[in-house]
Amino acid sequence: MTRPAPDLAAALRDAIGEGQLLFAAPDLAGYDQDGRGPGGAALLVARPRSADEVAAVLRIAHAHGVAVVPQGARSGLAGAGLADGSVVLSLERVAGPPRIDAENRTAEVDAGVPLSALNAAAAEHGLTFPIDLGADPTIGGMIAANTGGARFLRHGDVRRSLLALEVVLADGQGTQMRLGNPVWKDNSGLELKQLFASSAGALGVVTRATVALQPLPANSVCALVALAEPAEALALLLALERRAGTLLSAFEGISGTALDLALSHVPRLKPPFAGGSPPYCALVELSAGDAIPADLLMDILGEAITPMIEDGRATDAVIDEGRSLWAVRHAIPEGLRTAGAVIACDIAVRRGDLMRFREEAAAAVSARWPELVIADFGHCGDGGLHFNMVWPRALGPIPAGLAEEVRRLVFAMVVDGYHGSFSAEHGIGPRNIDHYVRFTPEPVRALAGRVQRLIAPAGIGRVDFGAGAEDGSPA
Amino acid sequence: MTRPAPDLAAALRDAIGEGQLLFAAPDLAGYDQDGRGPGGAALLVARPRSADEVAAVLRIAHAHGVAVVPQGARSGLAGAGLADGSVVLSLERVAGPPRIDAENRTAEVDAGVPLSALNAAAAEHGLTFPIDLGADPTIGGMIAANTGGARFLRHGDVRRSLLALEVVLADGQGTQMRLGNPVWKDNSGLELKQLFASSAGALGVVTRATVALQPLPANSVCALVALAEPAEALALLLALERRAGTLLSAFEGISGTALDLALSHVPRLKPPFAGGSPPYCALVELSAGDAIPADLLMDILGEAITPMIEDGRATDAVIDEGRSLWAVRHAIPEGLRTAGAVIACDIAVRRGDLMRFREEAAAAVSARWPELVIADFGHCGDGGLHFNMVWPRALGPIPAGLAEEVRRLVFAMVVDGYHGSFSAEHGIGPRNIDHYVRFTPEPVRALAGRVQRLIAPAGIGRVDFGAGAEDGSPA
Repeated sequence: MTRPAPDLAAALRDAIGEGQLLFAAPDLAGYDQDGRGPGGAALLVARPRSADEVAAVLRIAHAHGVAVVPQGARSGLAGAGLADGSVVLSLERVAGPPRIDAENRTAEVDAGVPLSALNAAAAEHGLTFPIDLGADPTIGGMIAANTGGARFLRHGDVRRSLLALEVVLADGQGTQMRLGNPVWKDNSGLELKQLFASSAGALGVVTRATVALQPLPANSVCALVALAEPAEALALLLALERRAGTLLSAFEGISGTALDLALSHVPRLKPPFAGGSPPYCALVELSAGDAIPADLLMDILGEAITPMIEDGRATDAVIDEGRSLWAVRHAIPEGLRTAGAVIACDIAVRRGDLMRFREEAAAAVSARWPELVIADFGHCGDGGLHFNMVWPRALGPIPAGLAEEVRRLVFAMVVDGYHGSFSAEHGIGPRNIDHYVRFTPEPVRALAGRVQRLIAPAGIGRVDFGAGAEDGSPA
Repeated sequence: MTRPAPDLAAALRDAIGEGQLLFAAPDLAGYDQDGRGPGGAALLVARPRSADEVAAVLRIAHAHGVAVVPQGARSGLAGAGLADGSVVLSLERVAGPPRIDAENRTAEVDAGVPLSALNAAAAEHGLTFPIDLGADPTIGGMIAANTGGARFLRHGDVRRSLLALEVVLADGQGTQMRLGNPVWKDNSGLELKQLFASSAGALGVVTRATVALQPLPANSVCALVALAEPAEALALLLALERRAGTLLSAFEGISGTALDLALSHVPRLKPPFAGGSPPYCALVELSAGDAIPADLLMDILGEAITPMIEDGRATDAVIDEGRSLWAVRHAIPEGLRTAGAVIACDIAVRRGDLMRFREEAAAAVSARWPELVIADFGHCGDGGLHFNMVWPRALGPIPAGLAEEVRRLVFAMVVDGYHGSFSAEHGIGPRNIDHYVRFTPEPVRALAGRVQRLIAPAGIGRVDFGAGAEDGSPA
């Protein structure tokens, strides 16, 4: 590695053009924050517009001994796209129109294209990229984080829809490589491309991907069910899976506290239940092609829910086409943020353990920090849980270090007690790398670090998957 | 590497027990053939019964400088499980009862358990491992090959259902490692376990896996549709995807010739169409939970097919619960084998290119080898095609080298002309490694080879993913 040279900027300017290099503090500010707020410190921002320009930026930065962090829409939550004195390589201009192949049900899409733009293009063909998120990340960011979202239950994460990738390797030479083909079925080699899904930008820069699309459902019906006990959520889930099979497209859980915080802090919402918020509720969605009418979907939901109301396991239910119910679900993060400082735990356990886990975790947290308001919600259908807590605004600023202490306690319960995941869908970044080191066995970290150094010998991104392992980190 | 020592057998016997080592030629014969017939030459067969014993076998073989080939149910088609003077490490005794977690919809299953045994255990809970195959491979073999099968359209390949793995690394020390957790959503590190799916046994030995299960459909209805033209298959597929969405669980294509060969050579079948075999037919399956009655599924099929019959795009259709129709589909390979020597091409192209490809490939093959009977069938719904040909029995033995020459022609059309896959679902092994070298760009092979050597430095299995690459192979 050579030292940063004064001609770095000149070389980059020659490679990608005068206006595509940002230095001034006001220009950089936006690039230094992500979905959790500020946290970055960019040396400069480079905005290449093609794979060739991305390769040039990597070569130049490497030659000048400057680190590079690839960045998408800055909606990440783990900090993996924020710089620490390094060059931000923004993919925002690698964003040509998505090429939809309607017969193949695929899209070839540049890494900087936002999810919303891909879905707008797909919708013209009656198709959708079925990863449902509150945020609007770029496709490249979605691959780096392997995002899941609210329809994981039916369609899985980004990995499951990933057919081919174009990448620029962080090997010092900016080598470009195509991994995979634009076809659905392919077992013609070692599966290298899947390493990039969930790689936190630490293996190279994805510049383009071919992803599988799904038919856009013609009919969709939702129910928000007020449950007498949280445990009834699993019973409802299992009944619906048996009855409705693959028509079940989402099964979300919302604690009474999370619902209350959304309703009291997000004025546009109106309370779904006349009798006040229940201890727990489930947001259920069935969706189908146009051969299955919405009325039938409503009947299926009704047949599952009515007996629960009759015998007191559910206390109320709202069934409709879902817009207002999803609005409640999507308003929860805003409700929590408005109520105070949020301590977020993005975890997953076995579906059958979910309610026992949340009770045990709530008891452990409340015993130690009675001030914290526990307001969890999440994806009951796949065992994912946003076990989030709020330090109420009225108590003033959250004490330094508290959030990390709480997370350590919760994550230890998840991993040691439940063989669960301490990062179900947000991935690894500077904000949770310490937990990665703590909860990942040393031999696994050592192997991951070796794989990372082999694929990205020049180094890229913010995450060292070999952190703390015996044979050392790349740095 | 040390030289093979005479005490290899004694050391293995001490590690796994007297009766679990096979040497005699009659005992070895069965272990030297797979789904395509003979081809192996085992030095001996070791049958460990646990991960610890697997690790011991790897350590001992390595210390004695003897190569090891992991083997499952020998149903593979690429030869990846056959030995070449090496030790066969059979997983057949690593096969405890599958542990089904019905609430989580997962199974923890030993690598040597056959698919049929996993599905029998899952069915007791109303669940299924949704990889539908003609053969009955072990779970470990399915992971090594990343099998797809006839319901890929809805449920994808093994990779998509893979939650966690226990592996023994081929690092000379027999290091055991657990990769992943028994949860559906996990993004807490670099995704190493996916490298093992489609690894052809060349990275280490999978001893146990946690896989996701799906609800067993309560109702299922099939149609075999005789099409006036092959191109009508795509129209029917797209209509059904729009109408039926995720209820569509299979969409297979069968050429008239493949149908004829099955009907004339498999006596148990009866012809589905009174008017003789059409140029092409589609086998379509809809399946659902018990909220969607079979009658409704039948109506949906009827509504899609009737207009096609009325305007002449389809000439006939049989709709029933599917048993006899799937029997026709599954009898095709037997029909072809009985008719002569089969030249199999397991390829995939974009769905929209499938019919154009098969016409072009058929024209090219027939022009050069008019004796070959082209009898293709496959998975129209995912672009996978068994572009198979028969050298008729009446012409005597197939000329030496012909099969490879035909495959080279067909694969070149697939890869160069269509950006398709020359190995859609059977994976890589000694039988197609030359095609891997030919069709995989050198930089990709070089990278794959480096990853393989990093993870399996002691070497294992039959495939060198770095074959022919500049920085050399492990051997």
